[in-house]
Amino acid sequence: MQHVEDLYPTRKDGREHIIDRRDPVIWGEPEADLPSGLPEDRLKQFARDGYLVVPDVFSQDEVALMQAELDRLAADRDVRAREEAVLEPDSEIVRSLFAPHRFSPLFDRVARDRRLTDPIRQMLADDLYLHHARVNVKPAFDGRSFAWHSDFETWHAEDGLPRMRAVTGWIMLTENTPSNGPLMLIPGSHKIFVGCPGETPDDHYKTSLRRQKLGVPHADTLREMARKGGIAGAYGKPGTVVFHECNTLHGSPDNMSPWDRRNLMFVYNAWSNRPVGKPFSARKPRPAFLSERPDAPLVPAEGPLAQA
Amino acid sequence: MQHVEDLYPTRKDGREHIIDRRDPVIWGEPEADLPSGLPEDRLKQFARDGYLVVPDVFSQDEVALMQAELDRLAADRDVRAREEAVLEPDSEIVRSLFAPHRFSPLFDRVARDRRLTDPIRQMLADDLYLHHARVNVKPAFDGRSFAWHSDFETWHAEDGLPRMRAVTGWIMLTENTPSNGPLMLIPGSHKIFVGCPGETPDDHYKTSLRRQKLGVPHADTLREMARKGGIAGAYGKPGTVVFHECNTLHGSPDNMSPWDRRNLMFVYNAWSNRPVGKPFSARKPRPAFLSERPDAPLVPAEGPLAQA
Repeated sequence: MQHVEDLYPTRKDGREHIIDRRDPVIWGEPEADLPSGLPEDRLKQFARDGYLVVPDVFSQDEVALMQAELDRLAADRDVRAREEAVLEPDSEIVRSLFAPHRFSPLFDRVARDRRLTDPIRQMLADDLYLHHARVNVKPAFDGRSFAWHSDFETWHAEDGLPRMRAVTGWIMLTENTPSNGPLMLIPGSHKIFVGCPGETPDDHYKTSLRRQKLGVPHADTLREMARKGGIAGAYGKPGTVVFHECNTLHGSPDNMSPWDRRNLMFVYNAWSNRPVGKPFSARKPRPAFLSERPDAPLVPAEGPLAQA
Repeated sequence: MQHVEDLYPTRKDGREHIIDRRDPVIWGEPEADLPSGLPEDRLKQFARDGYLVVPDVFSQDEVALMQAELDRLAADRDVRAREEAVLEPDSEIVRSLFAPHRFSPLFDRVARDRRLTDPIRQMLADDLYLHHARVNVKPAFDGRSFAWHSDFETWHAEDGLPRMRAVTGWIMLTENTPSNGPLMLIPGSHKIFVGCPGETPDDHYKTSLRRQKLGVPHADTLREMARKGGIAGAYGKPGTVVFHECNTLHGSPDNMSPWDRRNLMFVYNAWSNRPVGKPFSARKPRPAFLSERPDAPLVPAEGPLAQA
């Protein structure tokens, strides 16, 4: 097993350790031709803030197609029985559907869409693979809040991603508004790494995906970072795409609107940033449906989504 | 005991009853001279939406004065021991302070400030008295959400206010933003009365002020009303005042920001709208610190707040 230096120690002891980011945000010039790439100024904005909201990336017809596919999957008995499906305890509604590209040709196609992958290849200057994907449903009235955290902290500790070289591209399938539990971010927080106290218990993912406790920075740390960067909400109409740097601190309030909020989320890791050896702060990596290990980079696809 | 017709039946049986509002929102021309009144177009906006956000009503110096007074009260052992003070179970922080005008000359002065009372006298066309007052603290990170409800539904059922002739005027002591559990409202919802199922238990206020369950309209009702009116947030800088019609549906998400959110809230009822007899859907009225019964209307005060 290859030894890789732990550049971002976390969950090693009882204390919080704050260090500067040791990786670039924009990793250099991508070699490929990227027809759906972002203009220079938007990339600069992403590098500064650690996230970027781009409206009107997918059309309303394409959103309708994805919504219908999700309805179909959520009603499918075989899908509901899969480990990738998390049902609400009371209502039996599908709350999360992990790795939907595994059993939906449409979502496999969306995962490879150049409108998502081209901008992220610009940022990461490498081939990409899908590290993690999910449909996130935040139910009307009852969808609970999620505490502040950095995704990278978890992916480093529990999956073994060595460097900050991953970006989430996610699609709003319903409108995201201040009242329906939108993603909130601390702009600029991706430039700091907060190594957290504690130790990862085995199978931590079984509780952490419902409620994040480990990996939440200290109140004073969050206060200082929010004082500097403020708190921004990612709002937009269906079809909006958000690019979210892996280390940007984020969380969300509860959904108090009378409508479910649905987002479709793909995490892309640089091919050269695959986990090597065991995770940095857990005894074994999370299961593959949460932390994919494919044999080859993904092959981008072009053009509008169409009925299969 | 005088008999008053129940125009807004609620908590009478197991069903929800939806009726049109039977009262005006603007009750006519006030007779008094109201130097701090609102212009006509803002009153129309209030009549249409059921709420109105007015920035820069109190100066930053005045806000600082109120904040300091609140800090003083929250640290005062005698105040903390009063029934009007509700402490957080864990942190012992003062979460709510009811009727602060009773033991703070400054807050008594604020309650009578013409910048609050003149606009509400324009709306209610009557003398006013303070039905209810409180400082609302929504703690950083942990301040929980509050379900959709109409205040009038409670005040009618549990206090005995006969008509929709009361308005809340509240002051932002800290900034109210999408991330700190702001008030959210359904514009136009004040024109409908949702009579709710259920029966008021004795001493209901002891739980309802923490978590509203009774008096929450049905999900389908809320969905239909939000579809028509949308959901709006009341955001603003410290010193902003919000006028809130007694029947406008509202609620709030949790405070996920790293800062406490503090608002100072005064509910004014028309002098002619005092409770007569017993409440409409409870065996006895709430205690006086939640539902005041003064001997005379309040006497408005003019000019900037000053150190006592």
